[in-house]
Amino acid sequence: MSCVFCAIVSGEAPGIRVYEDDDYLAILDIRPIVRGHTLVVPKRHTVDLTDTPAETIAGLVRIGQRIGLAARASELKADGNNIAINDGKAAFQSVFHIHLHVAPRHSGDKLSFAKGLVVRRDPDREETGRILRDALAGLPD
Amino acid sequence: MSCVFCAIVSGEAPGIRVYEDDDYLAILDIRPIVRGHTLVVPKRHTVDLTDTPAETIAGLVRIGQRIGLAARASELKADGNNIAINDGKAAFQSVFHIHLHVAPRHSGDKLSFAKGLVVRRDPDREETGRILRDALAGLPD
Ligand SMILES: [Zn+2]
Ligand SMILES: [Zn+2]
Repeated sequence: MSCVFCAIVSGEAPGIRVYEDDDYLAILDIRPIVRGHTLVVPKRHTVDLTDTPAETIAGLVRIGQRIGLAARASELKADGNNIAINDGKAAFQSVFHIHLHVAPRHSGDKLSFAKGLVVRRDPDREETGRILRDALAGLPD
Repeated sequence: MSCVFCAIVSGEAPGIRVYEDDDYLAILDIRPIVRGHTLVVPKRHTVDLTDTPAETIAGLVRIGQRIGLAARASELKADGNNIAINDGKAAFQSVFHIHLHVAPRHSGDKLSFAKGLVVRRDPDREETGRILRDALAGLPD
């Protein structure tokens, strides 16, 4: 299977799952720019803004907003979030299965988002996944 | 009036309008990181992901997707787009009325998106606004 996100959705490839429902999966980015950097992917494969239905994008962002709120409410204590879709290789899209980035931010973290260069090590990815899952489960609907 | 986007919505401050409906306004960013850099704002003032209804975010992104498709289809000939919400000062939010960025991208433009430093001059902002409006009007529903 050539698409890594489809492989993660099907369970053929590993991923630390933050959220899942019938139509979407959210996983930790394996190359996080910040701790808690999460990708929300539709389970149905599409590439970018040109072939993804508007309702699918709306669903991605609905989940992304909740993950951002969870990052603020959780032990990650985010002060804010960058929410982004990179549409096309020219816009730094690297996996050609559409996805939404949620990058929890902290005041003064001095990150230049999406430079494509900054990769920080998360000392405990499993724990970060657990923190976000718990915070999501605790959010009001 | 202390909020610049509310002032633009009400017509008290100028803005080059790319799109408008009952609930949303899209304008060119006055400090574009690329040509065609557009901001989509809800007309009703809210601050960030914490106080903005999910349906409002979905509407922002629906319009942002269409602007991105228009940038690809138009004379701007974008190869892709960065779509982003900066949620909170820690995430580079600078106007505290929620907004969605659409930054049309070109292969090889070497932009480090959202460094917060890169500002490029658009030699003809009025023309850029016209190009995007026309392309939006020509998109299928
Ligand atoms: Zn896929
Ligand atoms: Zn406002």
